[in-house]
Amino acid sequence: MWHETYLKAVLQPDYVYASEHLLPHLFDSLTAHSLMLDHCGVRHAREAAELLRELRREPFPTYDPRIEDVFFTVDRALAARNPEAAGAMRTALSRNDLDMTIYRLSARLRLMRAMVRILTLRRVLLDFAHREIDTVIVAYTHHQPAQPTTLAHYLTAVENNLARDTERFFSALGRVNLSPMGAVALGGTSFPIDRDMTARLLGFDRPVENTYDAVSASDWQVELASLITITSTTLSRMLHDLLFWASRGLLILEDGLVQGSSVMPQKRNPVALEHARTKFSKAIGGAQSVVLSSHNVPFGDINDPGPDMQPPLNGMWQDFREGLELLIASLHDPIIGREKWLRDAKLGESPITELADTITRKTECGFRAAHGKVKELLEMLHEQGRTVDTLTPADLAGIGVEVTSAELATALNPADFIARRTTFGGPAPAVMQQEISTAEARLTLDEERHAVLTERFMHARAHLEGSRPETLPQSEGGKS
Amino acid sequence: MWHETYLKAVLQPDYVYASEHLLPHLFDSLTAHSLMLDHCGVRHAREAAELLRELRREPFPTYDPRIEDVFFTVDRALAARNPEAAGAMRTALSRNDLDMTIYRLSARLRLMRAMVRILTLRRVLLDFAHREIDTVIVAYTHHQPAQPTTLAHYLTAVENNLARDTERFFSALGRVNLSPMGAVALGGTSFPIDRDMTARLLGFDRPVENTYDAVSASDWQVELASLITITSTTLSRMLHDLLFWASRGLLILEDGLVQGSSVMPQKRNPVALEHARTKFSKAIGGAQSVVLSSHNVPFGDINDPGPDMQPPLNGMWQDFREGLELLIASLHDPIIGREKWLRDAKLGESPITELADTITRKTECGFRAAHGKVKELLEMLHEQGRTVDTLTPADLAGIGVEVTSAELATALNPADFIARRTTFGGPAPAVMQQEISTAEARLTLDEERHAVLTERFMHARAHLEGSRPETLPQSEGGKS
Amino acid sequence: MWHETYLKAVLQPDYVYASEHLLPHLFDSLTAHSLMLDHCGVRHAREAAELLRELRREPFPTYDPRIEDVFFTVDRALAARNPEAAGAMRTALSRNDLDMTIYRLSARLRLMRAMVRILTLRRVLLDFAHREIDTVIVAYTHHQPAQPTTLAHYLTAVENNLARDTERFFSALGRVNLSPMGAVALGGTSFPIDRDMTARLLGFDRPVENTYDAVSASDWQVELASLITITSTTLSRMLHDLLFWASRGLLILEDGLVQGSSVMPQKRNPVALEHARTKFSKAIGGAQSVVLSSHNVPFGDINDPGPDMQPPLNGMWQDFREGLELLIASLHDPIIGREKWLRDAKLGESPITELADTITRKTECGFRAAHGKVKELLEMLHEQGRTVDTLTPADLAGIGVEVTSAELATALNPADFIARRTTFGGPAPAVMQQEISTAEARLTLDEERHAVLTERFMHARAHLEGSRPETLPQSEGGKS
Amino acid sequence: MWHETYLKAVLQPDYVYASEHLLPHLFDSLTAHSLMLDHCGVRHAREAAELLRELRREPFPTYDPRIEDVFFTVDRALAARNPEAAGAMRTALSRNDLDMTIYRLSARLRLMRAMVRILTLRRVLLDFAHREIDTVIVAYTHHQPAQPTTLAHYLTAVENNLARDTERFFSALGRVNLSPMGAVALGGTSFPIDRDMTARLLGFDRPVENTYDAVSASDWQVELASLITITSTTLSRMLHDLLFWASRGLLILEDGLVQGSSVMPQKRNPVALEHARTKFSKAIGGAQSVVLSSHNVPFGDINDPGPDMQPPLNGMWQDFREGLELLIASLHDPIIGREKWLRDAKLGESPITELADTITRKTECGFRAAHGKVKELLEMLHEQGRTVDTLTPADLAGIGVEVTSAELATALNPADFIARRTTFGGPAPAVMQQEISTAEARLTLDEERHAVLTERFMHARAHLEGSRPETLPQSEGGKS
Repeated sequence: MWHETYLKAVLQPDYVYASEHLLPHLFDSLTAHSLMLDHCGVRHAREAAELLRELRREPFPTYDPRIEDVFFTVDRALAARNPEAAGAMRTALSRNDLDMTIYRLSARLRLMRAMVRILTLRRVLLDFAHREIDTVIVAYTHHQPAQPTTLAHYLTAVENNLARDTERFFSALGRVNLSPMGAVALGGTSFPIDRDMTARLLGFDRPVENTYDAVSASDWQVELASLITITSTTLSRMLHDLLFWASRGLLILEDGLVQGSSVMPQKRNPVALEHARTKFSKAIGGAQSVVLSSHNVPFGDINDPGPDMQPPLNGMWQDFREGLELLIASLHDPIIGREKWLRDAKLGESPITELADTITRKTECGFRAAHGKVKELLEMLHEQGRTVDTLTPADLAGIGVEVTSAELATALNPADFIARRTTFGGPAPAVMQQEISTAEARLTLDEERHAVLTERFMHARAHLEGSRPETLPQSEGGKS
Repeated sequence: MWHETYLKAVLQPDYVYASEHLLPHLFDSLTAHSLMLDHCGVRHAREAAELLRELRREPFPTYDPRIEDVFFTVDRALAARNPEAAGAMRTALSRNDLDMTIYRLSARLRLMRAMVRILTLRRVLLDFAHREIDTVIVAYTHHQPAQPTTLAHYLTAVENNLARDTERFFSALGRVNLSPMGAVALGGTSFPIDRDMTARLLGFDRPVENTYDAVSASDWQVELASLITITSTTLSRMLHDLLFWASRGLLILEDGLVQGSSVMPQKRNPVALEHARTKFSKAIGGAQSVVLSSHNVPFGDINDPGPDMQPPLNGMWQDFREGLELLIASLHDPIIGREKWLRDAKLGESPITELADTITRKTECGFRAAHGKVKELLEMLHEQGRTVDTLTPADLAGIGVEVTSAELATALNPADFIARRTTFGGPAPAVMQQEISTAEARLTLDEERHAVLTERFMHARAHLEGSRPETLPQSEGGKS
Repeated sequence: MWHETYLKAVLQPDYVYASEHLLPHLFDSLTAHSLMLDHCGVRHAREAAELLRELRREPFPTYDPRIEDVFFTVDRALAARNPEAAGAMRTALSRNDLDMTIYRLSARLRLMRAMVRILTLRRVLLDFAHREIDTVIVAYTHHQPAQPTTLAHYLTAVENNLARDTERFFSALGRVNLSPMGAVALGGTSFPIDRDMTARLLGFDRPVENTYDAVSASDWQVELASLITITSTTLSRMLHDLLFWASRGLLILEDGLVQGSSVMPQKRNPVALEHARTKFSKAIGGAQSVVLSSHNVPFGDINDPGPDMQPPLNGMWQDFREGLELLIASLHDPIIGREKWLRDAKLGESPITELADTITRKTECGFRAAHGKVKELLEMLHEQGRTVDTLTPADLAGIGVEVTSAELATALNPADFIARRTTFGGPAPAVMQQEISTAEARLTLDEERHAVLTERFMHARAHLEGSRPETLPQSEGGKS
Repeated sequence: MWHETYLKAVLQPDYVYASEHLLPHLFDSLTAHSLMLDHCGVRHAREAAELLRELRREPFPTYDPRIEDVFFTVDRALAARNPEAAGAMRTALSRNDLDMTIYRLSARLRLMRAMVRILTLRRVLLDFAHREIDTVIVAYTHHQPAQPTTLAHYLTAVENNLARDTERFFSALGRVNLSPMGAVALGGTSFPIDRDMTARLLGFDRPVENTYDAVSASDWQVELASLITITSTTLSRMLHDLLFWASRGLLILEDGLVQGSSVMPQKRNPVALEHARTKFSKAIGGAQSVVLSSHNVPFGDINDPGPDMQPPLNGMWQDFREGLELLIASLHDPIIGREKWLRDAKLGESPITELADTITRKTECGFRAAHGKVKELLEMLHEQGRTVDTLTPADLAGIGVEVTSAELATALNPADFIARRTTFGGPAPAVMQQEISTAEARLTLDEERHAVLTERFMHARAHLEGSRPETLPQSEGGKS
């Protein structure tokens, strides 16, 4: 019946994909729909719900080219056992609203699972920061040594980014977790149904407000692609730095995350980080597929943001999740080259801003002039082939600045540089400690919020499955 | 001093861009910083603030290749008038935090202005929907006539999308509207400053929590790019449909939005819609520049998400805004081919689902069987070369269904089809009326929220300018 | 030994991917390398080649977490049978040059296979054009009816595009089909080897000229991504039109390419075309992954454009190939609504340009004035509620133009319109016939060129496999 | 007449863009068309050509909202002076074919100009390579020191990439440089015209073969976007390395390409390289706009790949060109940290592969075993806290390998490592010298080919302008 090309390029892969990833959501949706129909007085609908609970426990049939898709596979299985139940289930139901419901349930699950990794990475970063609150590093700007700060300061900055990402994820969830059920083809139905009830049974916040919108909108999918893009670019930037540090021996991964060479015996490549980088690049590329599949197509029920978009969405989530997992593994407990970093800070010119600050305070000449004086001083040193640690009070006297040796020493000391930066958000250990505590408290709240939602979705699932929530399997929905 | 290539490819265009788009934000930031320094006891800082208020009223110097950028142009002008004030202003200040502050102020303004257009388009759509609550259209799925619905149903669906976009914009604003000031180069400063005060003066919600993050993060810019991408894909889909309608004479734009041909005398092209489509394509392309400029670069102060990203961001906002404006103009009051649409609905097969629903109700055979019966009926009609409007009770009796002529007529009538779809979110005029009211109430709330924020930002600007808010010029910041 | 995350996120999927897609290329490369070493006098290298020919015929081991990858799987298997041979094979060999060789061989194969589909689609389009040389269609510009032309004219235009794409594919092949072998880690080797010989054995045109380039470059992969992007955008545009035609019944797909609806009994959706559209969108998205994985990373041997890029490249090729196959199936023999199209051409105003041309010829007033006169005429008709077919010589006399009834009739007749357009490249059937012949001749040449290359690559494979070319299996390299 | 929004968002910016960038191409096209018409016997066409030559020398009118675009501005100016000439010029002409011709002429010019920069950068790289043929660097793979090679080896590898890009540019030019003139609206014309002649006059290779294709195709624009993407990703990778080197003081830019900090007195940022990176990111982003504007739109004359795509194409070319210029300036004569690089090579383990090669040759144990032995040796050294330069013949004897001190020393010496790598394409200076000569010869051929084309296009222009080629102004076509 089907053209062989169509079978091979569309129907069969769609069936395989759905079998692997979407069945629990399919059964949930049909069961909720049947329970709602029963509640609204549709005869045999209760039987449909019961049969669906039975069917989902059985092995799902492998692909049969005579049956269009997984929906019709269930439809036929039901009809074979109880035609009236099958007939009832089909009331006020279309694959249009059903599919969009399944995709939203699947997206909800992926979103929740991705959040687990983001929350874990945040925890790993804060724990790491805790350990490195006194670790001096040289921060670079424009690819040049800029100022000393602490590793904790850097790590917390990244965690703060991920905290904003978490906000974005929760916010997006509110737009994903809406029920299309009851929109039927696009215009609802002439049967009296209860969309609120179906929504509630599926753990959705509420029905999508307009039935045309319910089967047509792709904004929530492009938003998911956007979340991935936002977080992935941030993490690609951290990875740049981690790999830069690794290339200089400032960060060393544990053995299980390192690969050697078949020809260069000395090689210990920080490959976990490198692969993480490409995972994020590919996640962004997957996000592009989502955008392109929503571009210049009709606003209505079509395949582009429907079944066709699910595999790239899945690939995007998987790359994203694996990138996060590789980062979590890499940052769990790497070796930090603390001495090397401190040496770089001491021997380089990165603390010199503080000398200008000191001059400003001592002379009241204003920072503008002080900055100029220090530039002059550095030019003199460079001409004389001297390094900054050879500066003396006499040198400063030469440009009209009186400082003691102690004042000079402290102005050039990286640890003192840091200790003085007690500005809100700065690296001074005491301030940093406070920042980390604030971040931890926020993280705990986010974890709790996530746990409450997980609980709620698991209860909905348990009820639809006819199981008891306490016996729920770990994996709540399909393979991923 | 500068290499000629560097002057031409970087410094001069940056200066021109800043002069055109960023000066009010530059003056605001420096003034707020100076007022804060004064409050913290830095001498001459008050004078700096006063001088900045003077300078901003004067014409800004055109490009001078001896001066690096607009910041140093102001710095020199200040120093020429009052060196102590200039020295004071430079305390605890870097172009790093200053630039990021300016870019955030600029982004805030663009975001607020884009929202004006989105809010306007929502209003236009709802007003349009109001007028078309009874206008029957044939909704297409998979590029084929599917079911009758109303134009109001379609338009409200799009408005609902834009309402979610509005949510996203407000949500993003909360992450944009944070103050980097006081982060200085990246680690804060050893001077006692008050980051909260600067933030408040600039109308920011609060300071960015970590100073390294403050000068480094690009997540908020990628989020802006994402907002544009999300809304633009949705609108590209509506444009597909509008152009499809226009190509069939179902939607006719007013003369001022139509262009003819230099060779084909009959041409009246709906070019406003066509250009709107490309504006959104280009806005998404601009968003890609933002993503790429944040990809695989260091997480720290660099030029990529700094000055270099501002022109593509600006281009993105402009394309987006113009696309919205073209849509607003096009949908303000187009001619609708109501009769043609109704004729299509009546003569085509789109209402036939209701016949299956009717059979389900009459026979209690279940929808599954009813759907099968109607398919059979259609095959019979096609074989006999008949159209759906020729169906008779006798035809239905032939497949074992008893209906009266009246029942059959109503089952095939598009307006009746719609009237029966009273499902929550469906097109039945009474339901639709309620949906539109809900949408209007939400829109009004969003407009008010936007107005409150606008007021707040204008007050901050007025205070920094030293003007009185009631005399504020319409344009709050730069050209766009 | 390996971190579990690394195993699951990197090593195992890489092994599975390589087992499915890359083994023939791996064996080819190692065999060619060993034969070359033997030729250069490396002892035991001949034995290595022989053993490799044996091993490739045996089932390849499934994943074993103790072995890093497929290369070391082969290396160990060889060492178990003949340690000296294994030792010899490792001479002047690195996974760096080996992997890039495998990826190029794999890309060459995919490129050749994609070309088969492009060549087939070109043939389908030209055959189709042949049948529709007299089929009048209304060409649209700016989404409005513009001028009559023939379906053949449109189809040949698309074929011409694909002919240019074929040029691009052949041209890219010349940059893909180069041998990295012998570059070893990046700097070649201190052993005397013969890179030309290895290249020749593998069917490459020649070695990559610089060994650093050989293991580092990703330009050829980004070029492959570009080919896909170029062809896919063109075909997405044709799909827009095919779906537009399908939505109006002007093009009807055969039954095996059409899907119905679970709720709307009348539906016959042209889904093969719709899915083809998304396949191309996803192929472009896959191409983005390739671009992103080559962006802002080191120029040197890294994983991003290496193993990490292979799955998205493969996905890109697959989506592209399937999109082409769906188009080939759809355009093989669809039903064309010739009468409906002709009616549209006759009843609409699309032929009116010819009236202006006629006036220009008759009056010598110049086309500029003639165009103006026809616009006037149309305005008059619209005001009088008349259609173009009611125009009379008297109407034209009213604007000072003398035409006979026959002249007027022919000026308004779509078929005459077309017959007069004998410009080079125009739709007049005689001209069109010539264009199609030219296109067919070019296509035949391209097919022959493709066949010669296929033959050459198959011979290389056969020699390395130790088989005789005439017994070659259909599938030349792995699954895809 | 026009809606104000349409004026501001479309007509006025299009006019401004065309005035700045497209006028010479507009005049060329109209003049060539008129000369052709004259040749074909159209009366007054010669006068049109003469008037166009006059008009192009006069200042072009600024925007007048009553006139649609630059074409109608010329049309009116012509009509005001000689209505018959204006009438003649409009024969067999549409803005459809005219615009596509202008865009192709503009693209041709941009392509030629971009090639100038690519050819220059190739020359700069080869000259640089010449000077650094003996400069030892440590090549990194996977972000870790891998093997010693020379700076010349690296630079030539990049040049080789750009040589392939040059091939791609020439190849694309063959598809850009085709004439749409004579396609008129889409179907040619009923007037006898000579498309070959118009093509020849404009310096095109030949007319586009199918008139529908001529006004519809966007493949050549997406190909231009692809060229930019291919070259930009390659250069983004080189920039990664240059910035990595700059961050370690191995590469120091001249003063005019470096910027300081307003707060950190020591800063000398290699900003020319950083800005170049973003220029390429933005060029790729611009290329995305081109792809998106060709995606899922009709295949026919529309605005998306027409006027609407020109500004992003222009932005793309400009970013690309400026990125190249910044690279050319940066690589013209930077300071190279030769001693530091050599020290890194000597003190690190990067030459250790050669020890394995030496053992292979000495012991005939095969490379596989030798590699294992060296790994063992390194582990021993690490355990003992020793560096590689402390290795003695005794250490090697310990693993059963007899080497003399001299053999050991040479096996560990980076310069010897390089000198031994005489493989085709390897870094040994003698081989490298040959590679550079080959590259130079190819570059010279490319330069000559470019010059011949430039000459040809300038002659065409001169003839159409009515000027003599030797007096041609430097800038051949508009501002960029």
